[in-house]
Amino acid sequence: MMESKPLKIEIIAVGTELLSPYRQDTNSLYLSRRLNDLGMSIRYKSIVGDSWDDLLVCIHNARSRSDLIIACGGLGPTQDDRTREAFAAALGKKLTIRPEILSEIEKRFRKRGLQMTDSNNKQALIPENAEILFNCRGTAPGIWMQDGDKIIILLPGPPAELTSMFEKQVIPRLRKYRRGFRARAALKLTSLPESQVETEISDLYPKNPDSDLTILAVPGQIEIHLSSFSRSSQAEAETELFKLKEPICVRLGDNIFSDSDQELEEVVGSQLIAADATLSVAESCTGGLLGHRITNVPGSSRYFSMGVQTYSNPAKIELLNIRPELIARHGAVSQEVALSMSKGIRDRSGSDFSLAITGIAGPTGGSREKPVGLVFTALSWDNGAEVQCDRFLGHRKTIKFRATQRALDMLRRHLDRRVKT
Amino acid sequence: MMESKPLKIEIIAVGTELLSPYRQDTNSLYLSRRLNDLGMSIRYKSIVGDSWDDLLVCIHNARSRSDLIIACGGLGPTQDDRTREAFAAALGKKLTIRPEILSEIEKRFRKRGLQMTDSNNKQALIPENAEILFNCRGTAPGIWMQDGDKIIILLPGPPAELTSMFEKQVIPRLRKYRRGFRARAALKLTSLPESQVETEISDLYPKNPDSDLTILAVPGQIEIHLSSFSRSSQAEAETELFKLKEPICVRLGDNIFSDSDQELEEVVGSQLIAADATLSVAESCTGGLLGHRITNVPGSSRYFSMGVQTYSNPAKIELLNIRPELIARHGAVSQEVALSMSKGIRDRSGSDFSLAITGIAGPTGGSREKPVGLVFTALSWDNGAEVQCDRFLGHRKTIKFRATQRALDMLRRHLDRRVKT
Repeated sequence: MMESKPLKIEIIAVGTELLSPYRQDTNSLYLSRRLNDLGMSIRYKSIVGDSWDDLLVCIHNARSRSDLIIACGGLGPTQDDRTREAFAAALGKKLTIRPEILSEIEKRFRKRGLQMTDSNNKQALIPENAEILFNCRGTAPGIWMQDGDKIIILLPGPPAELTSMFEKQVIPRLRKYRRGFRARAALKLTSLPESQVETEISDLYPKNPDSDLTILAVPGQIEIHLSSFSRSSQAEAETELFKLKEPICVRLGDNIFSDSDQELEEVVGSQLIAADATLSVAESCTGGLLGHRITNVPGSSRYFSMGVQTYSNPAKIELLNIRPELIARHGAVSQEVALSMSKGIRDRSGSDFSLAITGIAGPTGGSREKPVGLVFTALSWDNGAEVQCDRFLGHRKTIKFRATQRALDMLRRHLDRRVKT
Repeated sequence: MMESKPLKIEIIAVGTELLSPYRQDTNSLYLSRRLNDLGMSIRYKSIVGDSWDDLLVCIHNARSRSDLIIACGGLGPTQDDRTREAFAAALGKKLTIRPEILSEIEKRFRKRGLQMTDSNNKQALIPENAEILFNCRGTAPGIWMQDGDKIIILLPGPPAELTSMFEKQVIPRLRKYRRGFRARAALKLTSLPESQVETEISDLYPKNPDSDLTILAVPGQIEIHLSSFSRSSQAEAETELFKLKEPICVRLGDNIFSDSDQELEEVVGSQLIAADATLSVAESCTGGLLGHRITNVPGSSRYFSMGVQTYSNPAKIELLNIRPELIARHGAVSQEVALSMSKGIRDRSGSDFSLAITGIAGPTGGSREKPVGLVFTALSWDNGAEVQCDRFLGHRKTIKFRATQRALDMLRRHLDRRVKT
């Protein structure tokens, strides 16, 4: 293998279920991330069923075009698991029982008070001259073998087994083939449209071909994934990443709510803990999603006191003391009612802050003056309040999510300003 | 092509981003479902980047092993979109401009008040003797061409464009290669563990090799996907499917909440509308998820009146009139408090039914007597109430989801019994 040229890497995912409409290979996403970290990239991904002939054709093609082949799946004890056998046949290698694997599997079964079955014997069959990759999460051992100047790695399909084996036993072996070092970061934003983010940072896209910028957007959230590569050291990769990231952070400023992969509700939770403050919520069109997201964060009982899902007008009147005339005059979807909801829940709970959401999630219920997607979001605190009006596009669930993003982001920015002043 | 043997089908997904850790080919899931409907199955899936050489190698291998090749992506106007050019080069076919495509693209641009760019010219280049598949959702036309006795189909990558083109223009052309007819159904269950479902129906697994049963499970929900195939007619496939499905439905009885792909909250919503009844909720550990799910259903304002997220003890006392002594004696996570919560919210809202959830979602807050995952769920109605105790396994979000499944399923079974008696 020529060390100067990058290895051509191919992932083969084995399993008939991966060709069905119901399941999808996801191991290759993890593998590509970790290979990228070593400066390696994947050239081909192949997916093939358990059929012996198809598997052999796939192995044949992979050997003709790739230098490093990583096959995932088909190492189990059942008859349709034949990855090991197919590779041995393709490479003309004999399979022999390795007693050290048998005793590992036996130990595993004994620990659980079970008897090892005969079918597990098959998992101790390893091609001659191959190295065993022990499996600390399951019975199927992995295999590392040379094929002339090529490398072939067989890994078990279950993600927990595959990742732990790859981290502990494959990455150390791959290090000598590494092409360099990669540093990564992800910036998360909300409250800005994707096109505006693209325009704002269009002159900051990496000129260095070893750096990479990918924008992933879902309605209500944008992630900017950055990575930089260095042939010589992790430190240099980090320096390059910093040079790429810093101007983007300056340009987008406090629109960025996280540079450490936190969700918005986690960021707000940390801010509330830092401020030793509590929060309550009043939700109309989001129906509980805001409280759900807040309470997805472990430890949120420290700052989340109570919430109400006031889906109907009587509920708003009963639980939040909204004056019926206010609803009659402005409608339940109005800035007046949003503000009154946030004040109502703050009074009721005695919390430091409160958020309220009222809007039209659709698909019905819209009008010319108040179309589907119209949402008012209000924030109240000890001596003030603010309200935002948005017109969100998308389906019902999208509008609900975007409304909760807006609410959490209002509180985030408010707490941020407080700390700064 | 021999009509008697099944076509060997290969999907090639083209795009460097599909080899990154961030994106994944999803078109092939849709394609495999629709091909299955025609009695065809996929033999290989290949994923390759925009590199010219890699693409040519991939096309070469696919032509050597498959009879029908469907390539997705790489038909756009930019320089790195080269699927069309690579297939033409591999097959030795000349590309010529087709004026009918140019005028289609021009029309598209004009409609939007835009000027067509020169780069779009490239999209009118079609290999000689190929058929054009017009694109009603975008500018990239698809291509259908013969390669000796093989068929090659090039489709645009964006899912909306691909699916509409496949439905309208590819399926009619594929019909003459169809191997038969497929009927499908999906049964959804909750409140039973996967292993129990497997055991209960183990003798009902299809003996007919043309029928298929796949169990997909996520914590809290099991889906049984059934399909039957007939070489001669859709009616026969439906009959076979019925023979497979019926005994399973009888065996699992009212554990099945849907056989028409509805979510549990949709089923409960329809039941409430049929009963002309209203619902309120009181949530502790689920923090709003139950209300969120209920209000994900369009039209839920007809039956959902109000909810409270009483995360703290003072909130339970303040909003639900729970007696402080009750919490002091039994703890907030107890069947007494769950029942009292459901009665409290029903009284407050005046709804016909109410659901309450209190539990320990973790990761902290558990004890020997009350471990993480312990959840009490209560249902109240005009002249009665019931309460369930569960010990759910999994992480915080899983426990929250499973608790809401339990609550919705209690109400579903109750409403079901009412209708029957």
